Amino acid sequence: MKRLIALLLAAVMLLTLSAAVAESAPVQAKYVFFFIGDGMGAPQATATRYYLGTMENPESPFPVPGKLVFDDFKYTGLMTTYDATSFCPDSSSTASSMASGQKTLSGVLNYDVNLENPFKLVTEYAKEAGYKIGVVTSVSLDHATPGAFYAKAPSRNEYYNISSQGLTGTTLDFLGGGGYKQPDGADKANPSPNLFEMAKENGFTYVNDNEGIRAINADTGRVLAIVPDLADSDTMSYEIDREALVAAGGDSVSLAEMTAAAIRNLENESGFFLMVEGGKIDWTCHANDAATAIHDTIALSNAVAEAVAFAEKHPEETLIVVTGDHETGGLTIGFATTKYDTHFQYLQNQKISFMKFDEQVKAMRENGTNFEEAMAIVQEYYGLTTEEGKDLTLSAKELESLESAFTLSMLPAAQRIIGEQEAFLYGGYEPFSMAISHVMNNKAGLAYTSFSHTGLQLPVYATGAGADNFSGSIDNTDIFRGFLAAMGLTEDEVMQPAAAK
Amino acid sequence: MKRLIALLLAAVMLLTLSAAVAESAPVQAKYVFFFIGDGMGAPQATATRYYLGTMENPESPFPVPGKLVFDDFKYTGLMTTYDATSFCPDSSSTASSMASGQKTLSGVLNYDVNLENPFKLVTEYAKEAGYKIGVVTSVSLDHATPGAFYAKAPSRNEYYNISSQGLTGTTLDFLGGGGYKQPDGADKANPSPNLFEMAKENGFTYVNDNEGIRAINADTGRVLAIVPDLADSDTMSYEIDREALVAAGGDSVSLAEMTAAAIRNLENESGFFLMVEGGKIDWTCHANDAATAIHDTIALSNAVAEAVAFAEKHPEETLIVVTGDHETGGLTIGFATTKYDTHFQYLQNQKISFMKFDEQVKAMRENGTNFEEAMAIVQEYYGLTTEEGKDLTLSAKELESLESAFTLSMLPAAQRIIGEQEAFLYGGYEPFSMAISHVMNNKAGLAYTSFSHTGLQLPVYATGAGADNFSGSIDNTDIFRGFLAAMGLTEDEVMQPAAAK
Repeated sequence: MKRLIALLLAAVMLLTLSAAVAESAPVQAKYVFFFIGDGMGAPQATATRYYLGTMENPESPFPVPGKLVFDDFKYTGLMTTYDATSFCPDSSSTASSMASGQKTLSGVLNYDVNLENPFKLVTEYAKEAGYKIGVVTSVSLDHATPGAFYAKAPSRNEYYNISSQGLTGTTLDFLGGGGYKQPDGADKANPSPNLFEMAKENGFTYVNDNEGIRAINADTGRVLAIVPDLADSDTMSYEIDREALVAAGGDSVSLAEMTAAAIRNLENESGFFLMVEGGKIDWTCHANDAATAIHDTIALSNAVAEAVAFAEKHPEETLIVVTGDHETGGLTIGFATTKYDTHFQYLQNQKISFMKFDEQVKAMRENGTNFEEAMAIVQEYYGLTTEEGKDLTLSAKELESLESAFTLSMLPAAQRIIGEQEAFLYGGYEPFSMAISHVMNNKAGLAYTSFSHTGLQLPVYATGAGADNFSGSIDNTDIFRGFLAAMGLTEDEVMQPAAAK
Repeated sequence: MKRLIALLLAAVMLLTLSAAVAESAPVQAKYVFFFIGDGMGAPQATATRYYLGTMENPESPFPVPGKLVFDDFKYTGLMTTYDATSFCPDSSSTASSMASGQKTLSGVLNYDVNLENPFKLVTEYAKEAGYKIGVVTSVSLDHATPGAFYAKAPSRNEYYNISSQGLTGTTLDFLGGGGYKQPDGADKANPSPNLFEMAKENGFTYVNDNEGIRAINADTGRVLAIVPDLADSDTMSYEIDREALVAAGGDSVSLAEMTAAAIRNLENESGFFLMVEGGKIDWTCHANDAATAIHDTIALSNAVAEAVAFAEKHPEETLIVVTGDHETGGLTIGFATTKYDTHFQYLQNQKISFMKFDEQVKAMRENGTNFEEAMAIVQEYYGLTTEEGKDLTLSAKELESLESAFTLSMLPAAQRIIGEQEAFLYGGYEPFSMAISHVMNNKAGLAYTSFSHTGLQLPVYATGAGADNFSGSIDNTDIFRGFLAAMGLTEDEVMQPAAAK
């Protein structure tokens, strides 16, 4: 009888346990990763999948999609991104919404729509609960998306204010990626305290070389890591340009390597929250340069792979969420005259980002290069050609579009007449570079509709502890609440202007 | 002691039961709804949300999105749609994949890539298990999407073959929507047995009037229901035209009413599987007519509402899945020159589908209407005007684009010279209608890139019994398997050509 009772008691205990497990699962996320592809909507991710699949299966008679690392994540959500200004929001308001759970105006960083009250951030909640906090970005450290996870400012343009909050505040343990736009403040004539000095005073170890970044670990302490080879606007290089540099024997830390450094540094028994931004998917989509966007999306996927490798060692306690902040450019996979065909393989001919090519165009202008000479350079970097019968042979209309754009680009900016048609064609970008990108995109079967952000819903991919919080039709403010729920934290009561949500 | 043992035994039973419930939930879907918005990708759905929100909140200083009925569904998935021909697939292969779990070529209906072996359909599995089967569509009953759920043919163009399979086969219990393209076969000179006679011989009750359709119930038996007011290509009217008709005192059964008729007819103790297609979202997006697409998306959402109302009465046994087959047109919410602004309210000025307006253009051509007279008609139906200072005042570039298109449209088709530029601008559609749609879209902050289907992933929305089968990153072939799993059915072993996946 006693054995029966013992057996039954054991069964009750076991079943109670299993019922509890089945019901509420292990929700406590101790290691939290949040990857944001700035400007990465469903079209960017899918174009990258199809590019990868096409490159990996050149002989296949059937289309084969490739995979991004987060395609195996169990949960997917569909996220609205509108802000209090527009259905087509900016990176500042959207990052604020994901970091704070509140809506605000475009251009505002973690302040309400009246610019009066700052929001409390997911990173602050996590910090209070003992998590270490890391922020990694491929753009400058003071930019809206990284800034939203450690600072608050009525305007995203207060770069120095945002930067100094990160360094003097207690939120950040690791900050890495690009550099600072205003290391001595906005007013060069009247400099403010230097940010690197400020970092030192606040216990940050400043790391600024490739090998140093690769050697970062838990013993490095608080880290400020900036890549030595800063590109345009104090950012990490576009992946397509970094690949070209590495192929030529150069060295340059990738977004994945910076992410790995952050993981080594942050790993501790109390857990961490790490936000990683692929920031230049947005920039290249503003410029309608699809090939460069695809390479930067691959770079982000590679960074996610570092988190997945970490999660394999801590499967029950790790949460990984991947999404974007808004779609940029109105990219789609399909163009009027290519109809049902795509030619992703054509994009491998592009060897340079639009931004690097802009430097070439500047040189052409300064050197008085003629169109024929310019087209030889275009062929070198893009494969586009006037020679008959090639994959990338230009049609009459395409050649005409390049020549018109070239003519405009060869004028000094002040002499260019920009009417409705030019605004539609080039959106304020270097006309020749833009026309080349449009031809490349369209030949591959891709197209953009805009030079700005769009209003599309974005996919959310989530795996691990509490990942089910990111499933279904959600809003970007739900991202904040999903993280709090996954970490088992409770939101403070906050009073917000009623209209703001 | 006995009471203790009894108590423990009861506890074990209770816990075993709850563990089992928590683990595998009530997965048996007895009433299965599958809604397909043909050509409805995330952009179409989101544009519709924002249009609804804008119309419902005209005074709001902040953007407010509206809701589609399926936005509250718990599970969302992201679905790839490529087929064995292209990353930009057609409705035939994609509907085949969702109906059969197999990939095939564009243009093929439920046959393998060698056009040798037919596939077994989800509706056939369901029928074998005792479910009743219904198919509803807003296009003709013999079209690829509805056809994929009851027929198999090496080519989607075998309309008569497809139609007769539906009527002579045992799969269908309810078939309703548009009409038949070839009631007497493809060859008018050599007619085949009439489809309506065939329906009668096979026990279908043919219903062809509005009140008759509204009176359909379980006693009607097998049903073939065709709306009396067939529009272009034997379809139900575009919703925007149906609304105009109803506003003018006319009567016309909506897609929601046809869906409700199917539900009343199919409801029975053994369950049912009902596929409902909003088929003309695709057609209007081919023609880049965003306003008409939005109204047809609302019509589909209203049809889903009928399923949701049914599910409220059978919450444990009902599964509702909503998705598209592919995106059409490369729609996005954002245009080069409107930048971050949208003006969804402008779209309310459009009172006519592109197809109905094509009839106006034909009349203009026949009547020798001049451009000024034509623009008065355009203002009546779209609100576009040359008058200064209005919301829809045309810019110089817009007016020029309309005039060029008008000039081309006034020529007989044989006299039109269609070069690269015209193919890009009009894609084979009536130039004047297309130019008007482009101006309307762009003024509202919307744009298309293509006249064909695109390669975007599509959102999937699912709720109810077995809805978790439709979550995560999936392929359109997983839709078939999700339905089988939800209904507790097992897939037969099928041999497929290896390359077809």
